[in-house]
Amino acid sequence: MRIAQVAPLYEATPPKKYGGTERVVSYLTEELVKKGHEVTLFATEDSVTNATLVSCSKTGLRFGTPLTDPLATHFAMMHEVAHRSNQFDIIHFHVDYLHFPFSSSNSYHHITTLHGRLDLPDLIPLYKKYIDIPLVSISHNQRKPLPFVNWLQTVYHGLPNDLYQLNANAGQYLAFIGRISPEKRVDHAIEIAKAVGMKIRIAAKVDKVDEEYFKTNICHLLDHPLVEFLGEIDEIEKKNFLSNAAALLFPIDWPEPFGMVMIEAMASGTPTIAFNRGAVPEIIENGLTGFIVNDIPSAIKAVNNIPLICRKSCRQIFEDRFTVEHMTNNYLDVYSRITAKKRTIATLNNQNTIS
Amino acid sequence: MRIAQVAPLYEATPPKKYGGTERVVSYLTEELVKKGHEVTLFATEDSVTNATLVSCSKTGLRFGTPLTDPLATHFAMMHEVAHRSNQFDIIHFHVDYLHFPFSSSNSYHHITTLHGRLDLPDLIPLYKKYIDIPLVSISHNQRKPLPFVNWLQTVYHGLPNDLYQLNANAGQYLAFIGRISPEKRVDHAIEIAKAVGMKIRIAAKVDKVDEEYFKTNICHLLDHPLVEFLGEIDEIEKKNFLSNAAALLFPIDWPEPFGMVMIEAMASGTPTIAFNRGAVPEIIENGLTGFIVNDIPSAIKAVNNIPLICRKSCRQIFEDRFTVEHMTNNYLDVYSRITAKKRTIATLNNQNTIS
Repeated sequence: MRIAQVAPLYEATPPKKYGGTERVVSYLTEELVKKGHEVTLFATEDSVTNATLVSCSKTGLRFGTPLTDPLATHFAMMHEVAHRSNQFDIIHFHVDYLHFPFSSSNSYHHITTLHGRLDLPDLIPLYKKYIDIPLVSISHNQRKPLPFVNWLQTVYHGLPNDLYQLNANAGQYLAFIGRISPEKRVDHAIEIAKAVGMKIRIAAKVDKVDEEYFKTNICHLLDHPLVEFLGEIDEIEKKNFLSNAAALLFPIDWPEPFGMVMIEAMASGTPTIAFNRGAVPEIIENGLTGFIVNDIPSAIKAVNNIPLICRKSCRQIFEDRFTVEHMTNNYLDVYSRITAKKRTIATLNNQNTIS
Repeated sequence: MRIAQVAPLYEATPPKKYGGTERVVSYLTEELVKKGHEVTLFATEDSVTNATLVSCSKTGLRFGTPLTDPLATHFAMMHEVAHRSNQFDIIHFHVDYLHFPFSSSNSYHHITTLHGRLDLPDLIPLYKKYIDIPLVSISHNQRKPLPFVNWLQTVYHGLPNDLYQLNANAGQYLAFIGRISPEKRVDHAIEIAKAVGMKIRIAAKVDKVDEEYFKTNICHLLDHPLVEFLGEIDEIEKKNFLSNAAALLFPIDWPEPFGMVMIEAMASGTPTIAFNRGAVPEIIENGLTGFIVNDIPSAIKAVNNIPLICRKSCRQIFEDRFTVEHMTNNYLDVYSRITAKKRTIATLNNQNTIS
């Protein structure tokens, strides 16, 4: 199949540092190439891929000056994609609704994975105007605010099978990883750790917008013998960080549409204690790959039950559900349905013309 | 003529406070209605107009929470505009390039006024893909970074004739008005005033992004007997502020594509001492409506020459060049050229079909 993958341009694909969407696009792209498909990746020039790279930006736009205009660069990319559309059997967009005005006036086959949160009221009027655009959700929960659009399938994210390795022995600390921001609730994580008297290690970056929140609400909580703050860590450090933990704490306070770190922990054999929000109950199986809790007291109980979780089973469930191969097969299924549907319509139209 | 005006949704049209583009769109819209045209205004619900208002947002998006998505709201508006396009002879867009993917795949007649700075490298690849879209610049200087696009005309902004009144008597202070930001160079203005020993009154808002700059670079300069800092002022206060000044200082350090405040001063009879950047030499006539200078020493000389400027002439030149009637007539000329051109093409096509 001739497949185009259209990545966001905020980071390289894969990203040099943080950048969830670009990372998933990279995993999918490389797996499709491995399976023998003819893949073209629209991404930044410093992206690394075995697909044919179409450079749409010198580097990740996240690192731009105040004089950069990320939207203009994305528009130019979409124009280029539309211009080359006859080279592809299917175009897979990962840039939210940005391509809708381009794609709705063109006849190419396309599918869009929505990677972000959809519970913003402003999205409703827009998506109501584009109810035919075929969409993939990254969890069922993500769909809730927009039930009226053309959801084709849910495809969970997947990781390369050997990216994380099982550590069968539980470590001695609780792990928190992510951004320091109000909706990630690192304060909850610290409270849980202190209550059970267990060490917590925090690997987290502080974005510019969250600096005030960090200073006012979090900083003073870090000064405690049980708390170790590591700052931002890279992908290699993350492997040890996750696999050596007793459990991952995921006390989110927002409808996170997926939550990659839960499957990264799972691939390492590490269970997750997660608050029941967003995609959590779709990813974590309570009592098998972690515990789903509703508040801090039940999280504290869950920490005491960590030894009940079999780390080998965590890894096994990861392999059964969340590898890049699963994800890629699911997407290939979606691609086939779209192209087959269009072929059927084309055939019907031809028959009508003939008769 | 059936005319659609498509305003940005960041502010009401006209804006409750700051908001240059929305204000110009309002002036143009009301003048077109006054001239008997059938005008439809796409804008926020709290806009005030004699045209038919199509509400595209409850209120100005500038006042949104972090969970608003201004782009989605603008996309929904453009979809609505395209949907109703057969109701209009011409659609006049004021939303930069946002509508290009919508308009390039539709057959309606349209014109776009570009209101912002165009010297961002990211714009070049985008505009190269849309070289046919008919555009209006707000100064000749604004065009410089994008010489290859389809510029139809330059139309200078205009003000309602009676919005500002001539004050024939020069006041005793220098005026600075605008945002406190590095490119506006309020520090230059203060330096000039101190050098000539003249009072300077500063009417300026400090945006969130500029707070750091304000604290570090500007705050300490304000503590001086010659300097009075007023903060943000409203449109009514602005009238007195400008008309009672000896001169306006406009020591900009960026290619400002127009600079409304220069014609507001002019309408009050107040000359402007402006640095030679952006549209300045197109708006100010050196020695007639102010002085165009290249550095602080020449600005200081210019302040001493303020009495050489005739304030009545300033007002007269405003009336000759920068009223809303001039602006509106110029736009009507553009509208006619576009619709006539399309009619000619349609006629030619019909003739070809007939023959």
